Amino acid sequence: MHLLSDLLGRPAAAIDTPALVIDLDAMERNLERMAAFAAQHGVMLRPHAKMHKSATLAKLQMARGAVGVCVQKTSEAEALAALGVNNIYISNEVVSPFKLKRVVALARELQALGGQLAIAVDSLEGLRRLAQAAHGQHAALRVFIEIDVGHGRCGLAPGAPAVALANEMARHPALQFGGLQAYHGRAQHLRTVAERQAAIAQVITHVQTTRAALQAAGHAVPLVTGAGTGTFALETASGVYGELQAGSYLFMDRDYADNERDPAQPPFEHALFVKSQVMSVCASHAVVDAGHKSHAIDSGLPTVHGLALDYANGGDEHGILRGAVLPALGDTVWLIPGHCDPTVNLHEHLLGVRGGLESGTVEQIIRVDARGALT
Amino acid sequence: MHLLSDLLGRPAAAIDTPALVIDLDAMERNLERMAAFAAQHGVMLRPHAKMHKSATLAKLQMARGAVGVCVQKTSEAEALAALGVNNIYISNEVVSPFKLKRVVALARELQALGGQLAIAVDSLEGLRRLAQAAHGQHAALRVFIEIDVGHGRCGLAPGAPAVALANEMARHPALQFGGLQAYHGRAQHLRTVAERQAAIAQVITHVQTTRAALQAAGHAVPLVTGAGTGTFALETASGVYGELQAGSYLFMDRDYADNERDPAQPPFEHALFVKSQVMSVCASHAVVDAGHKSHAIDSGLPTVHGLALDYANGGDEHGILRGAVLPALGDTVWLIPGHCDPTVNLHEHLLGVRGGLESGTVEQIIRVDARGALT
Repeated sequence: MHLLSDLLGRPAAAIDTPALVIDLDAMERNLERMAAFAAQHGVMLRPHAKMHKSATLAKLQMARGAVGVCVQKTSEAEALAALGVNNIYISNEVVSPFKLKRVVALARELQALGGQLAIAVDSLEGLRRLAQAAHGQHAALRVFIEIDVGHGRCGLAPGAPAVALANEMARHPALQFGGLQAYHGRAQHLRTVAERQAAIAQVITHVQTTRAALQAAGHAVPLVTGAGTGTFALETASGVYGELQAGSYLFMDRDYADNERDPAQPPFEHALFVKSQVMSVCASHAVVDAGHKSHAIDSGLPTVHGLALDYANGGDEHGILRGAVLPALGDTVWLIPGHCDPTVNLHEHLLGVRGGLESGTVEQIIRVDARGALT
Repeated sequence: MHLLSDLLGRPAAAIDTPALVIDLDAMERNLERMAAFAAQHGVMLRPHAKMHKSATLAKLQMARGAVGVCVQKTSEAEALAALGVNNIYISNEVVSPFKLKRVVALARELQALGGQLAIAVDSLEGLRRLAQAAHGQHAALRVFIEIDVGHGRCGLAPGAPAVALANEMARHPALQFGGLQAYHGRAQHLRTVAERQAAIAQVITHVQTTRAALQAAGHAVPLVTGAGTGTFALETASGVYGELQAGSYLFMDRDYADNERDPAQPPFEHALFVKSQVMSVCASHAVVDAGHKSHAIDSGLPTVHGLALDYANGGDEHGILRGAVLPALGDTVWLIPGHCDPTVNLHEHLLGVRGGLESGTVEQIIRVDARGALT
């Protein structure tokens, strides 16, 4: 990146390609709509920062009412904490003793700053390792028990199994039972509202069963946390969830936009784009300079913004455009990524443009602080 | 990455997960086998550094006889040149005037160091932009005309169209006609030897037709460059190619290993692994801490090294393992990535282990110098 800061105040046309660009106006509307939803429904918002990996954006969300952020990795938490984000929940299991030492050290740091670190567990062994790491370290951790509410990944089976973990947790004064982590990732991407309603109805049953088992064993359940951009209105409506973890609403990718919109959710706009450029044209197609090293394709290919062109994967560094009217060599083509989280992770910076993609001005350069933070 | 350098000399078991690990012994055998093949067949080797993006590995390849390296992006060339790689070919079109200025500046730099920069073109417009950028800059560039030999991406149609570009090139003293860029990417991954033979036979015909058209117009064709890890023995056997661009041979990913091996090619071994760890286990599956932010999935999912387990995609940060015997919480699982190039691009470092993955020692930490170099 040559003299990236020289771009500040310049027209968006000066951004060389490929580059990841935020439409700041659209992003701020998304931010406001989600903040208003949470306020109106009396539910806490803890957006997932695995999406943007940026302390600047985490703080922007917290300034608009978010109680903190989620991350998936210890190193993500460290990267954001180092830049002043002081309320972080690792909504994921950490079992490596080496990493658990880091988790405990970070908990102590955030505590000293008036903040807090939380983490998820889904096994007695994992819980014991965490307790061992925290023992005698003067660190307090809020710990959520993860249950598998249908996603089929991490998490205990719903119901009684959580009781043994809550019992064990009660033996360790450094660990405070935070409640239940209950996230159904696959439900986010079910296309129709009816399918998502059915999936989340099942989720709610699993949460209620588990909560009842814990309560019967004498454990109050302070909070249920979960939900994503595809379903959060449903979890909210259930009255069971106290905290929403949606992250993608801020940028809104192609995959989420493919969902039939639930009228109970605010409308979100695409705010994240890969700016690309036509580098080759022939009779049948044009080639842009953005391939799957510029945007993730795990949730499908990007779409082309504002033009009747189909994007086909052209490999690491190329995209192939087909359509009745092909763009010319050197033309700018804006792509809407299939999945924002792993797309952001491919870039060093997000370039914030104000006043529209084509005619706007570069107002902000946002570092992807936790890019590549895998451990 | 905390105190990464502390890992040097320590057992591989000390590497926290997920991490990208090179089996140095296997990599060096791959390096030697490819060098021996090129030497034996009297063909030049210019490995594609888009794969490893590392100046250390580029210099290792050049020390073993490679004439230089290829890259796909101007910023990749800059990153490697800054670290002493002085013979670089951007085997791709660059049409942005901003980037072409950088290309010309880099050409001048490498020239001053006794090195060289080369680039590909596939349009008169692109060639004129390049010539304009080079005009009066005291920079010499070697320029290859790319033809589409069946891949269906960039490149002129084979035959006569190349003549107009060679004519134009002759008008610009800063540009030296290097020859033909002719790479069939999709042919690399055709599974049977017979399919690859048929595809490359067609490639050779296209190259010969184009060469004949150029020669008839009075243009000598100094070199034909191309070929990849899947087919290079075929391009070599044709006698038409003078330079091979294979890159993946060094690390050998799952996708290339799925090819039926051509006995004319040396055998390559898997040398690149994602070290991961089991973070959750239930009756039906185990979950590892490596998802598609740890390895690229454009060419399919990773396989599990040495264990009878199937890896299913669990999202950005998780992989789901199924099999008759599941690993236990905390167990190490080594994954063989589907595609090495975009996998390496997800990581800051490659950790080089000597003496075997399980019982070896961390000998080298190799920076992915051009990671995220997209422009």
